[in-house]
Amino acid sequence: MERHRHIGHLEEAETIGSASSIVPHKGKVILELIQYNATEHRMELKLPIETLISHLKPSVVNWINVDGLSDRTILARIGEHFNLHALLLEDVCSEHQPKVEEYDDYLFFTLKMLYQIKDGNIDYEQISFVLGRDFLLSFQEKEGDLFGTLRERIRLDQGRVRKKNADYLFYRLIDIIVDNYYNVLDAVGYQIEQIEDEIDKGDNFEFQKIQRIKKELIYLRKALYPLRDALSKLIKEESPFIDPSNERYFSDVYDHVVHLIDSMDTYKDLTSSLMDIHINTMNTRMNEVMKVLAVISTIFMPLTFIAGVYGMNFEHMPELEWKFGYLEVWILMIAIAGAMVLFFKHKKWF
Amino acid sequence: MERHRHIGHLEEAETIGSASSIVPHKGKVILELIQYNATEHRMELKLPIETLISHLKPSVVNWINVDGLSDRTILARIGEHFNLHALLLEDVCSEHQPKVEEYDDYLFFTLKMLYQIKDGNIDYEQISFVLGRDFLLSFQEKEGDLFGTLRERIRLDQGRVRKKNADYLFYRLIDIIVDNYYNVLDAVGYQIEQIEDEIDKGDNFEFQKIQRIKKELIYLRKALYPLRDALSKLIKEESPFIDPSNERYFSDVYDHVVHLIDSMDTYKDLTSSLMDIHINTMNTRMNEVMKVLAVISTIFMPLTFIAGVYGMNFEHMPELEWKFGYLEVWILMIAIAGAMVLFFKHKKWF
Amino acid sequence: MERHRHIGHLEEAETIGSASSIVPHKGKVILELIQYNATEHRMELKLPIETLISHLKPSVVNWINVDGLSDRTILARIGEHFNLHALLLEDVCSEHQPKVEEYDDYLFFTLKMLYQIKDGNIDYEQISFVLGRDFLLSFQEKEGDLFGTLRERIRLDQGRVRKKNADYLFYRLIDIIVDNYYNVLDAVGYQIEQIEDEIDKGDNFEFQKIQRIKKELIYLRKALYPLRDALSKLIKEESPFIDPSNERYFSDVYDHVVHLIDSMDTYKDLTSSLMDIHINTMNTRMNEVMKVLAVISTIFMPLTFIAGVYGMNFEHMPELEWKFGYLEVWILMIAIAGAMVLFFKHKKWF
Amino acid sequence: MERHRHIGHLEEAETIGSASSIVPHKGKVILELIQYNATEHRMELKLPIETLISHLKPSVVNWINVDGLSDRTILARIGEHFNLHALLLEDVCSEHQPKVEEYDDYLFFTLKMLYQIKDGNIDYEQISFVLGRDFLLSFQEKEGDLFGTLRERIRLDQGRVRKKNADYLFYRLIDIIVDNYYNVLDAVGYQIEQIEDEIDKGDNFEFQKIQRIKKELIYLRKALYPLRDALSKLIKEESPFIDPSNERYFSDVYDHVVHLIDSMDTYKDLTSSLMDIHINTMNTRMNEVMKVLAVISTIFMPLTFIAGVYGMNFEHMPELEWKFGYLEVWILMIAIAGAMVLFFKHKKWF
Amino acid sequence: MERHRHIGHLEEAETIGSASSIVPHKGKVILELIQYNATEHRMELKLPIETLISHLKPSVVNWINVDGLSDRTILARIGEHFNLHALLLEDVCSEHQPKVEEYDDYLFFTLKMLYQIKDGNIDYEQISFVLGRDFLLSFQEKEGDLFGTLRERIRLDQGRVRKKNADYLFYRLIDIIVDNYYNVLDAVGYQIEQIEDEIDKGDNFEFQKIQRIKKELIYLRKALYPLRDALSKLIKEESPFIDPSNERYFSDVYDHVVHLIDSMDTYKDLTSSLMDIHINTMNTRMNEVMKVLAVISTIFMPLTFIAGVYGMNFEHMPELEWKFGYLEVWILMIAIAGAMVLFFKHKKWF
Repeated sequence: MERHRHIGHLEEAETIGSASSIVPHKGKVILELIQYNATEHRMELKLPIETLISHLKPSVVNWINVDGLSDRTILARIGEHFNLHALLLEDVCSEHQPKVEEYDDYLFFTLKMLYQIKDGNIDYEQISFVLGRDFLLSFQEKEGDLFGTLRERIRLDQGRVRKKNADYLFYRLIDIIVDNYYNVLDAVGYQIEQIEDEIDKGDNFEFQKIQRIKKELIYLRKALYPLRDALSKLIKEESPFIDPSNERYFSDVYDHVVHLIDSMDTYKDLTSSLMDIHINTMNTRMNEVMKVLAVISTIFMPLTFIAGVYGMNFEHMPELEWKFGYLEVWILMIAIAGAMVLFFKHKKWF
Repeated sequence: MERHRHIGHLEEAETIGSASSIVPHKGKVILELIQYNATEHRMELKLPIETLISHLKPSVVNWINVDGLSDRTILARIGEHFNLHALLLEDVCSEHQPKVEEYDDYLFFTLKMLYQIKDGNIDYEQISFVLGRDFLLSFQEKEGDLFGTLRERIRLDQGRVRKKNADYLFYRLIDIIVDNYYNVLDAVGYQIEQIEDEIDKGDNFEFQKIQRIKKELIYLRKALYPLRDALSKLIKEESPFIDPSNERYFSDVYDHVVHLIDSMDTYKDLTSSLMDIHINTMNTRMNEVMKVLAVISTIFMPLTFIAGVYGMNFEHMPELEWKFGYLEVWILMIAIAGAMVLFFKHKKWF
Repeated sequence: MERHRHIGHLEEAETIGSASSIVPHKGKVILELIQYNATEHRMELKLPIETLISHLKPSVVNWINVDGLSDRTILARIGEHFNLHALLLEDVCSEHQPKVEEYDDYLFFTLKMLYQIKDGNIDYEQISFVLGRDFLLSFQEKEGDLFGTLRERIRLDQGRVRKKNADYLFYRLIDIIVDNYYNVLDAVGYQIEQIEDEIDKGDNFEFQKIQRIKKELIYLRKALYPLRDALSKLIKEESPFIDPSNERYFSDVYDHVVHLIDSMDTYKDLTSSLMDIHINTMNTRMNEVMKVLAVISTIFMPLTFIAGVYGMNFEHMPELEWKFGYLEVWILMIAIAGAMVLFFKHKKWF
Repeated sequence: MERHRHIGHLEEAETIGSASSIVPHKGKVILELIQYNATEHRMELKLPIETLISHLKPSVVNWINVDGLSDRTILARIGEHFNLHALLLEDVCSEHQPKVEEYDDYLFFTLKMLYQIKDGNIDYEQISFVLGRDFLLSFQEKEGDLFGTLRERIRLDQGRVRKKNADYLFYRLIDIIVDNYYNVLDAVGYQIEQIEDEIDKGDNFEFQKIQRIKKELIYLRKALYPLRDALSKLIKEESPFIDPSNERYFSDVYDHVVHLIDSMDTYKDLTSSLMDIHINTMNTRMNEVMKVLAVISTIFMPLTFIAGVYGMNFEHMPELEWKFGYLEVWILMIAIAGAMVLFFKHKKWF
Repeated sequence: MERHRHIGHLEEAETIGSASSIVPHKGKVILELIQYNATEHRMELKLPIETLISHLKPSVVNWINVDGLSDRTILARIGEHFNLHALLLEDVCSEHQPKVEEYDDYLFFTLKMLYQIKDGNIDYEQISFVLGRDFLLSFQEKEGDLFGTLRERIRLDQGRVRKKNADYLFYRLIDIIVDNYYNVLDAVGYQIEQIEDEIDKGDNFEFQKIQRIKKELIYLRKALYPLRDALSKLIKEESPFIDPSNERYFSDVYDHVVHLIDSMDTYKDLTSSLMDIHINTMNTRMNEVMKVLAVISTIFMPLTFIAGVYGMNFEHMPELEWKFGYLEVWILMIAIAGAMVLFFKHKKWF
């Protein structure tokens, strides 16, 4: 279960120095600098912060990727260089819903990156972007991301990234993250299909799985709805940091998110339909068990009673001395059992 | 179950050539050209792409229908000729919700075409339209559509199609698709009626059917709600590609979709009402079974106990030697059984 | 269950002559003409269409009432005379949700007229109005309506109808239809009260009735919500066909519809409350049945076992030879039964 | 249960004289006139209508309170004097949702007055206000209201009422009515607390009570939501009949109604939570009953079977002649019973 | 359970002096004055009201904190000095939803302060703020608050509070209150996790806990939703009492509240998911119990019947005299029991 990582006020916290209010982000901070334009490019990993800042230059797109948020002094140094607002740095480090915020010199955007882990669970990582006119900052909680292919394409100058500006790079990164949501949602869809197959086969232990899917959908909803709103705000506000010719790209990402939400809602409906089927199956079985019990009891209780009657030890029991008494009692008992069976047939109990 | 067919970026994918990210559309691509105005018309099927492009002319309505989306080079060639945006071509090929988008030189509209298959299931096909001033492109996933009658009417110059422009053709095609939704929804209504009849007759295996209807309604909702929104947007934005005198036609289609949604919601309510009836029927039966069990047990357990008592082998059991002991015990047992029956009558158990 | 009567395109259908796509409206078409102003009036029933048209004159309110929609040529002739749009005629003949539409020369309004049938069911009839400056057309599916009293009032010059224009007549007709909804809803309320009385009396077969009420409310909702929206649109758009001094009348009808919707929602809540009571009653009874079963079993099973023990035929069973063995075993059995009863008392099972 | 009192059209109904369409309001009509300004005041009860009208004067606030709506001629006379619209008089007499309506010369406001009756039920009375520049009309269905204290304050010149105009009087009356809603809602809250206490004590007959609370909340909702909307409209439209300096008072009443709605929603949630607890309690008990039944059956059925075996009368049954056969069978039976008990312990059935 | 503390009209109530309509706030009233600017500061506790007012001066931020609302004369004196509206003082003393209201000379803001009490319950305290140009009033119901650290920071001149104006102080106080909501919500999250762990372990008494969490979430909702709306209103209206440069801080608090609401909704979904699991667990156990009962009954009832048959005392029962009769009957009984076991295996009952 996700826990709130809300850190109070960065600038204030630093002044007091009370480390306890800051959630420690494990792992080291790794700084990566990717610079490119149509003619040149440069990629450097694990740069010291001051070296990185000295390498920045205005004629290229400067993409600074920060993996790990544990070292506050590095964040503060970046904040100082790019003139980032104290609240923005706070938002980078504390958990937030996806949102967009426009500042005077840059645009702030934060969303969740989804990873699918082996056993069907989903892992979340918060990623924040700061888009300026010639730079893009990306802040990730952990090392490792989905952008390997894009780095390669920048290096080999494939596609249009190298020909475009920082806003297009920003779009491409968001698009990659959103595209990965499809994989996660398809996995959910696959699990639902599997459960449907199990139900068709008559297997019966699907309840825990349905609950797990429901839980995943609850968390997905939490990531997707505010992301849609943030993208919608981004498109409508016509930010100066995004070139009008690129706005259609963001609209496209928005459409994808709307489609994802729609699919998610469909899966939610299918899941509650599965719940209904599960509950109905259990009730049907309960009914069947009760019917077997009722049929057996109803047939054998009268017979056992009759046997009990002729097991009594009264001195004067005329039937006991009849020649065909035993035969007749058998006939009586078979007749009763037969009548009961006909009664249940009539009631359509089997 | 529907799977996401999201293909990543067409133009980028081509550059890399990684076919794996593109969902293969089976079947060949068939190009069809229909040209007409009030005085002349021309229909050609299975044209090569370059021939088709060379046949286009400005004085007529040019309807180019593309069946099958597997051949990217053809799509790219069409895109090049009509100056289609890369994202638009991507939308044509990947699965999307119904939506409308206005570009500088054309209007893009995509929706789902529904087919009813033999065993009551519904099949979906995505169809996309690009409406320009003197042309209409339609992209379908598979061969075969609902437009046979309309083609015939164009050929014979029936109705008003030949007198009107490409926007009216566009309306006619959408209207035909939406009209077909009525057939699909009527089939759902027919299934609900059938289940209601079964319930009236007292039959009891309707649960699977209810679930299937619910599932169909979930998918229909997915097709209809965004279609309504897309049509609403189309009407409100007063696109330059639609003649003001034709706007009322699109309003009419919009009304039909609203009516369809309304009927769908009614069917949804009826379906959950059926679910309630089903659950109530099961509970009623359970109650009945339990009552039979309780009645039989409550009557025969005391009787069997009494029989058991007089089956004991104590040496000193005075009743056993009474002359009418056996008769008296029968009287006692019948009295107990009678009292039980009266008790259950009083409780209204039967 | 209601079926979709969607007829495709009137004008197109006529051209082709494919009668199959048109739902046949049974019964003949009856034309009625009512003309009046403050000083004169004239009422004619079963007029031939051409006669009727020749009688129309500008100085009076011309109310043309069409009962039955089966004869397309008559409709087409009326459409031609009043310059009605093809889509409007189509809407008159096909089933639609209540809606309002403004054309250049007239206002189109369609809604449902409700009738209560003997056995508590509700019957629906679609009625459409076309309001011009000096005429009002009304199209009904069947003969027989709710306007008898109003016709009489026009004849006798009671109330204000004769002093006012066609828009006031239009208001009066709608108001009569909406007023009749109160009767229908009151009947639903009466049924709910009856079920509540049955529940208070402890009767138990109300489930089918609850379901029927729910179904009626589903259909009522379908009629009322779009009617509210249509009226709201009518009021807001300040149509030139409605005199500003009469707008308050339409607001009043709107208020009635809002009140009806509110009552309907209340009935819906009461109905699901009844469902809860029904389900709870069933569960309570099930519990009671199970308790009786458990109590009887728990008391008699140990006793029957003890009787069974002393019915065994072992040669060496000392108790059997005790002088007071039989008495003692009775004491034991009564003690066990008493302990069980105390146990159940403690558990508050009875 | 509330019934619709919709009376058709007053002016029309009078013309025809069909009394049947008018709901008779029982009791006599009592007219009360209260006149005041900062320096003088006058209160008169049970005035004849003409006397009352002759007493009206422009320099004071004229509050005319009408208790009982049965005498149409009096209402018509008041309507005539104050130039009230026919639809307004109709709204006064027929049941309506709370609403506000502005006319040229006055403001119309109608809402429900709630009374708590002895046995926990709530009684509703509709009250309508007509606010003019120097007069306030109030129409009540029955004698007796909540305004006794206010009348006394006017008489003794306490608070600010005497210093202010008719709009402040109007505010005070509405405020008194809304304040009384708090009492009603607190009573509902008290009932919920009582049920919670009963549940904590383990008592079990709360179901009827929960249903009654739910029903009360359904009716409260019907009174409160439209009242909120009416007040919101009153504030936003900045009516000329309300002095801008007094608008904050109406905002305050609006806040109270919003708070009431919020509390009502909370109670609704608590009530459905109580329903869940009730259902769970019933299920838990059912489970317990079934466990007792299953445990007793499972222990005694095998034992009774064994006893039955050795009660058989076969000639050759070696065990019967064993010296310790009887003892051994007891040991066997105790062992089986013990094994069963351990099995149930393991299953955590008790 | 919370009770409505609605006090009627302060100014009116004072005039009459009817103390009964005023809810008594226990404890004494403690007045605290904190004055500061960048260069100086002064903190005084338990000042008499007149002394406090005489200490106020324009060159500093004057924060007056009132703990306890029981002494109306003190409140009236403060109201008189700061020219507070009578309705505002009423709102301070009566319970209200969070809201913001702008007056000519100050801004009024009221919200709930949450405290977590030992046994997992949540306590609420209403706190109201009045923000003027150089003063901030805060009214609390009880002594003790969350602002200790902030007071210390003002004293030691840490952070930016001393450099800023009263609006920043106002922000800091609200922010501290909202931050404390995270603790409360985390505690709820922790309880949900605990229940999930219990479920995984197979323990079964979680129902009461789920209900308690649901109840807490109902009350949290009541505090958070109107708080969000009040903050949204505060931001949008661009109050003159808040410096534009500080508006981003209020946006940040707003974002936190939105995030809190989102987490709360997630917890609500998880809670109803837990309810489903609980209900399913109970049903599964019921099924298991019934199966054990049915299996045991179905196996032993026929066997007991057979034993009963051969316990009958008929004179002519040939089987009894067979040499291997006893053995054969055992074989028969074992065969029947075995067949039953196979039957249940086939039915997958165990």
